[in-house]
Amino acid sequence: MSAKLIKNALGRMVPDEINGQKQVPFKGVGKYRPTGRKHAPKIASCADYPEDGNKQVKNLEEALKKCGLKDGMTISTHHHFRNGDLLANMLFDTVKKMGVKNIRWVPSASFPCHEHLLQYLEDGTIHHIEGSMNGPLGRFTSLGKMRGTGILRSHGGRYQGIQDGDVEIDIALIGAGCADSFGNANGLYGDSATGLLGFALADSQYADKVIVATDNMVEFPCIPWQIQGNYVDYTVEMDKIGIPEKIISGTTRITKSPDRLYLAELTAKFCEQTGIIHEGFSFQSGAGGTSLAVGEYFANIMRKKGIKARFARGGSNKYLVNMLEEGLVDYILDGQTFDLEGVRSMRDNPSHVWTSPFTSYNYHGKGNFAGIVDVVVLGATEVDVNFNANVVTHSDGYLLHGLGGWQNCLFSKTVVLPLPLFRDRIPVVVDEVTTISGPGELIDVVVTERGIAINPRRKDLIEKLKGSDLPIRSIQDLKEEAEQICGKPKKPELADDIVAAIKWVDGTIIDVVRRVKE
Amino acid sequence: MSAKLIKNALGRMVPDEINGQKQVPFKGVGKYRPTGRKHAPKIASCADYPEDGNKQVKNLEEALKKCGLKDGMTISTHHHFRNGDLLANMLFDTVKKMGVKNIRWVPSASFPCHEHLLQYLEDGTIHHIEGSMNGPLGRFTSLGKMRGTGILRSHGGRYQGIQDGDVEIDIALIGAGCADSFGNANGLYGDSATGLLGFALADSQYADKVIVATDNMVEFPCIPWQIQGNYVDYTVEMDKIGIPEKIISGTTRITKSPDRLYLAELTAKFCEQTGIIHEGFSFQSGAGGTSLAVGEYFANIMRKKGIKARFARGGSNKYLVNMLEEGLVDYILDGQTFDLEGVRSMRDNPSHVWTSPFTSYNYHGKGNFAGIVDVVVLGATEVDVNFNANVVTHSDGYLLHGLGGWQNCLFSKTVVLPLPLFRDRIPVVVDEVTTISGPGELIDVVVTERGIAINPRRKDLIEKLKGSDLPIRSIQDLKEEAEQICGKPKKPELADDIVAAIKWVDGTIIDVVRRVKE
Repeated sequence: MSAKLIKNALGRMVPDEINGQKQVPFKGVGKYRPTGRKHAPKIASCADYPEDGNKQVKNLEEALKKCGLKDGMTISTHHHFRNGDLLANMLFDTVKKMGVKNIRWVPSASFPCHEHLLQYLEDGTIHHIEGSMNGPLGRFTSLGKMRGTGILRSHGGRYQGIQDGDVEIDIALIGAGCADSFGNANGLYGDSATGLLGFALADSQYADKVIVATDNMVEFPCIPWQIQGNYVDYTVEMDKIGIPEKIISGTTRITKSPDRLYLAELTAKFCEQTGIIHEGFSFQSGAGGTSLAVGEYFANIMRKKGIKARFARGGSNKYLVNMLEEGLVDYILDGQTFDLEGVRSMRDNPSHVWTSPFTSYNYHGKGNFAGIVDVVVLGATEVDVNFNANVVTHSDGYLLHGLGGWQNCLFSKTVVLPLPLFRDRIPVVVDEVTTISGPGELIDVVVTERGIAINPRRKDLIEKLKGSDLPIRSIQDLKEEAEQICGKPKKPELADDIVAAIKWVDGTIIDVVRRVKE
Repeated sequence: MSAKLIKNALGRMVPDEINGQKQVPFKGVGKYRPTGRKHAPKIASCADYPEDGNKQVKNLEEALKKCGLKDGMTISTHHHFRNGDLLANMLFDTVKKMGVKNIRWVPSASFPCHEHLLQYLEDGTIHHIEGSMNGPLGRFTSLGKMRGTGILRSHGGRYQGIQDGDVEIDIALIGAGCADSFGNANGLYGDSATGLLGFALADSQYADKVIVATDNMVEFPCIPWQIQGNYVDYTVEMDKIGIPEKIISGTTRITKSPDRLYLAELTAKFCEQTGIIHEGFSFQSGAGGTSLAVGEYFANIMRKKGIKARFARGGSNKYLVNMLEEGLVDYILDGQTFDLEGVRSMRDNPSHVWTSPFTSYNYHGKGNFAGIVDVVVLGATEVDVNFNANVVTHSDGYLLHGLGGWQNCLFSKTVVLPLPLFRDRIPVVVDEVTTISGPGELIDVVVTERGIAINPRRKDLIEKLKGSDLPIRSIQDLKEEAEQICGKPKKPELADDIVAAIKWVDGTIIDVVRRVKE
């Protein structure tokens, strides 16, 4: 790469160009102001679409041909099928069969099931990936084997990037549990039901050509139309696009680990004592074991106090659905359903509302929902003494996780990270994180089993907890204790080459991932 | 006007420029192909919006000030409040008070209640209107009193025009029966409930600044968000924005006139005998007395045959709601609720679906719903021997009606116009209509009390009715009978000046309205 390296507002050296596109370094939270206009798709005409609304073609290859697929194009997919995705694999089998090369693949995320695609990264069918990489594709990228440089965006950042034209999509392939031949689609019905399809919204609105594929074609109208057929060029019926038991992953099980339960309990106590849990409050908690436990502790506190929350932001799951049905929350504003109970509730309960990265997270909108949420509970692989946190790489330097909505959630009124002080005798609280995924100024509280560190910027929280029995400590203290127990962690062995860039929510580059030396 | 007049594909002389903007003459159905890109709004940043999502300002004047209102700007409103709209009147009272002049007003339609605005057309607060004009503003325009030239667009054409940047809106004012301070809004709740807010969708998506006004501010989140707060700049709470009993107009009463009932019955028989009414068919029928009666006759035929419709397109009303609840239709795809039963059903029944001019009617989308509908029953003020029809002017030349979704509906598989052969002894079937609102090639059947004329292009329908007992006649025959009874109608006395232009669904000019000599 001939790009120049520039020091960004967090002191990280980032390139001014990636894959031939100019880049802006991170300038600080809220400091970069976009000046342009949104990406303007070509004006279509009904004169070019079937009069009777039936856009169905015989198979995926036919659809790709009609879309004019050729070398070097950009194709997007979404990750609602999670680790049960068959469609993205079939897509690139087809692209390979058609002899097309050098595709820029823009998934909203990739999963271990996409290991199948390593062969296409190797043979040049796929040039590079812009999208979160969970597992094998991340490892491949970390080793410097990908032809281009990876770009990771948060859910909101992906909407922003597509909306703003940072990434122009030639062909979007949208898999849906249910669709009609016009292209209206939802994730609420069928064997490959995913709950919602919000991660594909930007793709439908801004891609040049849009294909909807389903294994459950219904008669017009497919209701509700989470994806609107008016954005769709072609529809395809396929045998099977997802593996149901892998779409609904096993994440929705509350942890049984006493250590993690303790973290969850401490987090809940913190929120209770600071008054964050109050009548009409709102919260967001992920679908990991600890986060689910936090939700259960919240529920208990709410029952005890006789109060309810105005809304909970999802990832929804059976625990959150129970709270909705018990009347502990008025609404679930859901971005991603994690289990069948989530799907059922979203289908049948008008108070279980489907959202999208546009409504919830897009930083280049006229506001979004993230800032309205009173408290969000998130994970991280590392956090440093400046409260900067990492969610994408491990301390060995490998890129193994996506950003999800993590960056976007940092705009919540209070951000809490319940984290073990160390994992496998490697400190989690460190001097400097391997990769900055989010700036410390937005991270308010780190809860560990050996104490709670409050960001000094949050004087209000510190004030509220004066005299509390909670184990409040400085982040420096926590780091030192971790080092006393585990020893000073050694830095991973990294080469200079940049294998991936981490975008901030405004499209600027907050950090890069460097090649891991084998 | 210094514009050049050009003969369009229907032989009408239309200007190549209106209000300083270049225009394209109508080229025939499906013949004009747009080449550009959609209007691209400026990229916003959450950094410029309140962190807690509360965008409420103290009043409308404050909101307009913050939007940077100044002379010559374009302001849009919607007509869901119909003849009970207080908001558009208050808007221009405020604009006047602020001393701002020469506003281009882009309502989706105006009603008799907007007679209040004549003073602002006279004093130059409003420069001209682009939008349908029902009643007094149309009369004012017809007399050549408006400073600029009016432009009428269909519901779909208005979406197209805004989407394509034919009309760029500086400030959109969206009145909602229910909203939150973030700007999420719907028409389902509150004293000023209108059912849905689809006519304001394009405005919310494409206007530079967007204001949501409500007399029913609820706590975030306002569910459902028919208008998404992420497009909204400011919100305003007001005492009263609509007059409930005038929002819900008196149109939803089935005609008792024997003549009109006969027209409705003939129309239904026609649809029965041609096989248009079949298991899983779809239909659209307006909210006028005759149209409602057609719906009732349809219902009887369906009961008799033991069949049901897949969907009905609304304008919804209690009769349509009854059919949904009886199980005669699977879905109502609703564009506009005409009575309280419609609002109730839309609020409570997931099979009563809100649509928008984007999904239903936008001709510059990748298809729309209009072409999927098996049969649509529409009105007209005049129809001519070439099946061209007029819905905007009367035979005296006065512009007194809007286009509504009428043009868009012409893309239905079969278009039927049930019309009296004459009204007040003035023929309705004529040699040449005063103003062409829709081209004859899209109008299939004219049903009058003295016979049914089928467009010769529809050989299939003519074939199906061979041997039928229905009174099939030629349109020429019908015209001649009308003239025998009423005498040859005399042409209205019109000046050369063009006071308004009628756009076709693709943004081209299908006809103009000329000044009426007083």
